[in-house]
Amino acid sequence: MIQRVAIIGTGLIGASVGLALKAAGVAVVGWDQNAAELATALQIGAIDKALSKDQALDPGVADVFLLATPVLPILDWMQPLAASLHKAQLVTDVGSTKREISAMAARIFNQPETARFLPGHPMAGKESGGAALADAALFAGATWLFTPVDDMQTEIESDWRALVAGFGSVVRDLDPVAHDEVCAWVSHLPQMLSTALAALLEDTFSDDPATMAAVQAIGGRALRETTRLGSSPYSMWRDVALTNTEPIAASLHALEQRLAHLRENLRTPELREEFATANRFRAVKKS
Amino acid sequence: MIQRVAIIGTGLIGASVGLALKAAGVAVVGWDQNAAELATALQIGAIDKALSKDQALDPGVADVFLLATPVLPILDWMQPLAASLHKAQLVTDVGSTKREISAMAARIFNQPETARFLPGHPMAGKESGGAALADAALFAGATWLFTPVDDMQTEIESDWRALVAGFGSVVRDLDPVAHDEVCAWVSHLPQMLSTALAALLEDTFSDDPATMAAVQAIGGRALRETTRLGSSPYSMWRDVALTNTEPIAASLHALEQRLAHLRENLRTPELREEFATANRFRAVKKS
Repeated sequence: MIQRVAIIGTGLIGASVGLALKAAGVAVVGWDQNAAELATALQIGAIDKALSKDQALDPGVADVFLLATPVLPILDWMQPLAASLHKAQLVTDVGSTKREISAMAARIFNQPETARFLPGHPMAGKESGGAALADAALFAGATWLFTPVDDMQTEIESDWRALVAGFGSVVRDLDPVAHDEVCAWVSHLPQMLSTALAALLEDTFSDDPATMAAVQAIGGRALRETTRLGSSPYSMWRDVALTNTEPIAASLHALEQRLAHLRENLRTPELREEFATANRFRAVKKS
Repeated sequence: MIQRVAIIGTGLIGASVGLALKAAGVAVVGWDQNAAELATALQIGAIDKALSKDQALDPGVADVFLLATPVLPILDWMQPLAASLHKAQLVTDVGSTKREISAMAARIFNQPETARFLPGHPMAGKESGGAALADAALFAGATWLFTPVDDMQTEIESDWRALVAGFGSVVRDLDPVAHDEVCAWVSHLPQMLSTALAALLEDTFSDDPATMAAVQAIGGRALRETTRLGSSPYSMWRDVALTNTEPIAASLHALEQRLAHLRENLRTPELREEFATANRFRAVKKS
């Protein structure tokens, strides 16, 4: 049974996992590059103890090591953890892209004498980060994806999956390349779209305070929802863009063409087809 | 004082206004082209009495006539109402575009011997229409725009504005051309974007049920919010596209270029600028 988890990166997701683990009776220790985030995580009870960076690499500190930083630091932490941990231990992560992480996991973990690595990705979050917004219920009802590196499932991996299911998440396995393809469409494209729309509105109206005031006052739920992700931090999305460039670029290009098609058909019956097709997508996706 | 309002078009917005008026103690009669919508409006108490089309043109039936259909039928109703009503009466509307409606209002209403016309537009709605979803609180906290045709404000117009303010709406006046320009950005562009994204996902994945199932299962709040307006009905948006084509096309074209710029900079420091600019827009627009 998993007695203690070390969370590396105690921002919104890391601290939320910490709260959910604590609610499940698991001890949690944590580290964050940002001392204030780490202090907040400790203060809200997401971790029992703050670790130094050296302590976070100590195999004696936990059974499971959860990497909850952006993707590039996850890749950076994998190498020293692979060298330090014992074969009965588990490393898992919550990184937004899985192809590069899973490929590195296959190379340096999951060998006869190394610890196991189970790449993971909870489909949950908020547009703003930080431990202060952490919530034990963040994963309830959300899908938590795993992209296993091999067909083996050791006891500690099963135990981790059971803990995640206990958070109320729907656990689902996916091939890492398929993961990054699908996430380009359902997560990265909506993010880039929302960032582009918010940035466009800012550049279009920020020199004209009267019209900007009207834009902000008049915009209702439609504007709020389509620009909400514009609040998301570059620090996290830079790594997503760097590790999933081609699928994101392909989905963006397809959307650009679709918008041009719609624009050219604002006064033709083809607009009816666009609305009918969109209606069909939404008829399945109830929300 | 306004004793009775005739609502022409008892769908979501018309029936919601009906409920809000009833809560304010005003009598409401109504007509809808769709007999089922009209029956629902009557059943939920949004109107006290259902009218025939002829009755809805009878000047004796109400003090104020609210046009709550899509934009083209609003334009169609204006002519016979202008011919039928008396000078002490008011016609107002909730159409999504205001340039054509205001121009026609200036031509055929607001003459010495005609009724008054006060063009209006509540910035509220739901992605699905229909009287069954009507809600007296729909306008609470929302902006309700007016695009007056002249500088005069008769008593009945002041009374209507007071009723609208009593719904909890924030009343704001705007020039009709400025209205359509701003609404292209804050309402029509988010709608077209959401329709294009939902239609693109439907066309990309509907032939591949397994991946579509993953798309639907994995997509979280980001996907839900950015495609929510994909449920919106063509019947309403056709008229918006027809009566505000150029501003919508210009905003779509600008967004296409912005998405291309972002796509070309997924691996450059320019991506940081895009996120920073989007963050600035959202820092003002709290939600």
